[in-house]
Amino acid sequence: MIKAGIVGGTGYTGSELLRLLTAHPQVDIIAVTSRADAGTPVTAMFPHLRGHLDLAFSDPEQTCLDNCDLVFFATPNGTAMRQAGDLLAAGVRVIDLAADFRLPDAHLWERWYGMVHAAPHLLDEAVYGLPEINREAIRTARLVANPGCYPTAVTLGLLPLIELDDIAASPIIADVKSGVSGAGRKAATPLLMAEAGESFKAYSVTGHRHQPEILTNLRRATGREISLTFVPHLVPMVRGIEATLYACWQGPRQDLQAHYEARYRDEPFIDLLPGGSALETRSVRGTNLCRLAINEPLDAGVVVVQAVIDNLVKGAAGQAVQNLNLMFGLDERLGLEPMLALVP
Amino acid sequence: MIKAGIVGGTGYTGSELLRLLTAHPQVDIIAVTSRADAGTPVTAMFPHLRGHLDLAFSDPEQTCLDNCDLVFFATPNGTAMRQAGDLLAAGVRVIDLAADFRLPDAHLWERWYGMVHAAPHLLDEAVYGLPEINREAIRTARLVANPGCYPTAVTLGLLPLIELDDIAASPIIADVKSGVSGAGRKAATPLLMAEAGESFKAYSVTGHRHQPEILTNLRRATGREISLTFVPHLVPMVRGIEATLYACWQGPRQDLQAHYEARYRDEPFIDLLPGGSALETRSVRGTNLCRLAINEPLDAGVVVVQAVIDNLVKGAAGQAVQNLNLMFGLDERLGLEPMLALVP
Amino acid sequence: MIKAGIVGGTGYTGSELLRLLTAHPQVDIIAVTSRADAGTPVTAMFPHLRGHLDLAFSDPEQTCLDNCDLVFFATPNGTAMRQAGDLLAAGVRVIDLAADFRLPDAHLWERWYGMVHAAPHLLDEAVYGLPEINREAIRTARLVANPGCYPTAVTLGLLPLIELDDIAASPIIADVKSGVSGAGRKAATPLLMAEAGESFKAYSVTGHRHQPEILTNLRRATGREISLTFVPHLVPMVRGIEATLYACWQGPRQDLQAHYEARYRDEPFIDLLPGGSALETRSVRGTNLCRLAINEPLDAGVVVVQAVIDNLVKGAAGQAVQNLNLMFGLDERLGLEPMLALVP
Amino acid sequence: MIKAGIVGGTGYTGSELLRLLTAHPQVDIIAVTSRADAGTPVTAMFPHLRGHLDLAFSDPEQTCLDNCDLVFFATPNGTAMRQAGDLLAAGVRVIDLAADFRLPDAHLWERWYGMVHAAPHLLDEAVYGLPEINREAIRTARLVANPGCYPTAVTLGLLPLIELDDIAASPIIADVKSGVSGAGRKAATPLLMAEAGESFKAYSVTGHRHQPEILTNLRRATGREISLTFVPHLVPMVRGIEATLYACWQGPRQDLQAHYEARYRDEPFIDLLPGGSALETRSVRGTNLCRLAINEPLDAGVVVVQAVIDNLVKGAAGQAVQNLNLMFGLDERLGLEPMLALVP
Repeated sequence: MIKAGIVGGTGYTGSELLRLLTAHPQVDIIAVTSRADAGTPVTAMFPHLRGHLDLAFSDPEQTCLDNCDLVFFATPNGTAMRQAGDLLAAGVRVIDLAADFRLPDAHLWERWYGMVHAAPHLLDEAVYGLPEINREAIRTARLVANPGCYPTAVTLGLLPLIELDDIAASPIIADVKSGVSGAGRKAATPLLMAEAGESFKAYSVTGHRHQPEILTNLRRATGREISLTFVPHLVPMVRGIEATLYACWQGPRQDLQAHYEARYRDEPFIDLLPGGSALETRSVRGTNLCRLAINEPLDAGVVVVQAVIDNLVKGAAGQAVQNLNLMFGLDERLGLEPMLALVP
Repeated sequence: MIKAGIVGGTGYTGSELLRLLTAHPQVDIIAVTSRADAGTPVTAMFPHLRGHLDLAFSDPEQTCLDNCDLVFFATPNGTAMRQAGDLLAAGVRVIDLAADFRLPDAHLWERWYGMVHAAPHLLDEAVYGLPEINREAIRTARLVANPGCYPTAVTLGLLPLIELDDIAASPIIADVKSGVSGAGRKAATPLLMAEAGESFKAYSVTGHRHQPEILTNLRRATGREISLTFVPHLVPMVRGIEATLYACWQGPRQDLQAHYEARYRDEPFIDLLPGGSALETRSVRGTNLCRLAINEPLDAGVVVVQAVIDNLVKGAAGQAVQNLNLMFGLDERLGLEPMLALVP
Repeated sequence: MIKAGIVGGTGYTGSELLRLLTAHPQVDIIAVTSRADAGTPVTAMFPHLRGHLDLAFSDPEQTCLDNCDLVFFATPNGTAMRQAGDLLAAGVRVIDLAADFRLPDAHLWERWYGMVHAAPHLLDEAVYGLPEINREAIRTARLVANPGCYPTAVTLGLLPLIELDDIAASPIIADVKSGVSGAGRKAATPLLMAEAGESFKAYSVTGHRHQPEILTNLRRATGREISLTFVPHLVPMVRGIEATLYACWQGPRQDLQAHYEARYRDEPFIDLLPGGSALETRSVRGTNLCRLAINEPLDAGVVVVQAVIDNLVKGAAGQAVQNLNLMFGLDERLGLEPMLALVP
Repeated sequence: MIKAGIVGGTGYTGSELLRLLTAHPQVDIIAVTSRADAGTPVTAMFPHLRGHLDLAFSDPEQTCLDNCDLVFFATPNGTAMRQAGDLLAAGVRVIDLAADFRLPDAHLWERWYGMVHAAPHLLDEAVYGLPEINREAIRTARLVANPGCYPTAVTLGLLPLIELDDIAASPIIADVKSGVSGAGRKAATPLLMAEAGESFKAYSVTGHRHQPEILTNLRRATGREISLTFVPHLVPMVRGIEATLYACWQGPRQDLQAHYEARYRDEPFIDLLPGGSALETRSVRGTNLCRLAINEPLDAGVVVVQAVIDNLVKGAAGQAVQNLNLMFGLDERLGLEPMLALVP
């Protein structure tokens, strides 16, 4: 059994990790830390886990995680970068579900995240944990940067597209929409149900932190600079991300459906729908799937790719479990099956 | 007092008309027809109108509307085109809230709406009822085609933009989102709360009827052909439309904020927010306002315009009342003030 | 014009007061205070008021409210009791929308609200602002305690019932449900949309502060001790309270429908539906109405009374405006018409 | 492997059965019928099952179910009673998820369901499929009447209570609330999101079909007549039932918490929370659990029991799978674990 620790288990990525890991046949959760809630039984905060986890939150200062095989950081940005080094030195592998190791360039990171990076020397080693582009590197990684939720959906939707020379020079539009759980379990007025309910809005229109992460992914994959406009929106629902992605043919059209099918044929967590389909977020709710659909409406020379994920699963905790499976030589799908969305 | 009749008063555009007209100081509702519910008191179906309307639905076959000053059609597509001619001949003015008279070309209409047009001879006379582009023509119109909800939001958002030569050649993306009331009060499985709740989806990705209506508006306004990609989405909320509109500069940039301000300075129902703002649909809930915000994020050469309306007010019944006011020489805002959205 | 000040204008009762008062023909809002947001234009926080209110939040320490005719406290519990005395001494009338003056007994208040009462000497003077039981006293009151949202719905639903000797001895059950705006605009984890959305729950099952307020009302009205079990629930919606009230006949049945009709015949804000009706909260959304319906299902000897209100209107700001109208000799309905709910 | 057929697989109980059975290790689904959608691949209607079920809906007239080991009826009321006899004669066991066999008395059934019962001779044989009261009878049953969703929650909440002599004579109040999926996947106006969203309502206040089913359960369990008032409400959410149940002590109080614990100690799908807890429906979302909590607020002599279930799982398809497990000698929990609710 793999001994896993979770630092910061009281947010949504943390609780979703707990949901998935308690059901994982090869993982024992040996510690879940929380500074504010140390001593509280996990099931007192998360009654839906009653009967599945007999553990209390422990004080991070008093919790030795050195005997873990793997530690997940489900903390705010800026925590993992201060603690990962010691754990790695102690032989513990690390998956950070926050943003600390997602960008390869400390200066770029500092500009977007507004703090000094505490471990720039680890950035080279960190492997970006999107299996669909980095599967082999993840297997042997000591430190995995689990992708952001928007970057997961947008990158998986765009990857095959921008590999085509006749698209790549196009300005790309990513109009993305997320349920409110994407913003985390922090008490903030704009996330109140009385604020976010029965309304739809755009936000961060002048620039969002996931923009440089997506651009990094696309640049790595293609070796090119991509022009991307990324506008996030908040949907009055709890879970789910939908990305509608637009690009223009710059040369002769190709058969995109066949191209995507070929690109993702062996991916266990990607499901490409028939051409002309439209997607809904609930079709992946609770699962680690990314579903994709391609359209070229009305012959305008514009390609429309839709991607949907569950932001807390493929966009966070599920992808982290997928990475754990890869890192420990397990079947990539272990603990993530059956992939049956909760519909309705 | 203006004597008004409503044909087909049991849907959402009909009930919203009733809500607005019962409070309008210059209008008397003298008949509301419904084939299926003839004889039923209106307040039995719509208890929220109790105390404000002492009228029963009447059978359309047995209701003479010739003594109305104005008849609203809040019917499915295909009804007004069969009845408008007789009413006009009887000296009654007509506002159709459905699509029958929105497109100038009967063939184009028939292709999108899947039926033969019963009154192509009226298409030339019909005035497209978007006051912001047709105010003077509406004042004297006998027959007004009240715009669709998406076309209202998208047209108002794009109009000033495409008047600029250095934008107009750009492929334009309209990523639009609507609450479920936009689909009307018809019993259809996809509109059930158990289907549409807690999920977000795209639909009609291969082509939507409002696309040719928007293109007609933009062409009329500019005399140019515009390349528009229009993808509608369904939001798990009741009221509201948000349009995020994207275009690329094809020449030197201009001060868009100032341009929009100049264009819409005297419009009573358009509110342009300061640059860099982001909009939420609830800020116009229950009002006839269209709020707009302009952004040019991250210097990518892409312009992002956001428009929000209440689909049942500025997108339907409120705009119809605005048109009534114009047609009868009243203050355009009568019955539509105060413009205070219900927030939260 | 009545000069009104609002202390604490950044919560939901405050913003709803702003919505109603900006449209009130006899009120000028001359100051809105907020310690945290002093200097911010009100419309920067509440964009839905753009165009209707040209005022910034002012620092309460630097705002003299002595020249107001009326000051509303839309503050947390414990603020009005420290400031009302000085305002009254300066000749300013006061309506407290919080709980400070709702209970006649300072000790009872202190037990439920967990703080020392700072103005017990004002409790005798304070008039409980439920016009349906205290209309005459409100007209001349200097200090009005605006009722709580649950107590408004439950009291109006039960009043005629417990006036009947053959009901009053019955144990009464009040199963009440509220939308999330009832908890206010404070950043608290349980009120996040990701917590409260797509779920329904009971809370405060061991005792809720509105229980003694309701009991006080019922005791005042009848001179009897009533046995009341009150269980509040949280509904995944923004606005609305529904109370389902149960009591058992202890003697021969009477015609309840006729009894309620007689009791509420002249009340402008109470609407009794025909017997056998069922109510929905949206039928009063945005209005100051309380709608009631009575049922005696299946001859079990149990009476079921349903009451619905909009918690922010009749349950808070609307009732405060109704009280203002009474206090200043205006038509009770001024600024509260038309009473047309926003449906759907 | 158990060969299972599903008659009427296009509703919510049908699709939930498909979700659970495709993941069940001992069941093969060999046919799913639908008159209206015969020929359509199941995953075309339910894309969330893509990759898990390679089957098309088949025409019920042309589908021989005689080689099934078990047939589920996920049909409207009135279908199973016409077909169950032939299947039983062919040696096929039957679970009806509709109401045809839930009441022991054909006359009572006909009164509430408004049609003639086609198989009154099977009513004696039918076993009411609530394992917590009928476990042994279910094991050997040929025909199981799967309980209604409300009756499951209310019966499990009340059973231990009414076994106490000092409660049983009390009038009992069941104030129950359901998400919209409880009404099924039928296109009906009141179930539209634009009708049911952002609103809360009572319905069937004059009498609901689940009332006699609950009374039958309570009578069977105790041998007494119980006085029950049952008022259902519709919550603007998709899944979940909450029942708040009220009764009054008629004699000396007992330790209810201990009594419930003893009664349900060995039940795999019942979870009793500590005294003073309050429950939320999401804590059981997607699971076959019934969670219970007991309170005696404010010493009023009134007992408050809360029960929550997922109406589509323990209230329908999950309970049917639990019954299948019992009928075929399997572990009762097979295919229903892990019991981890999807939260948030």
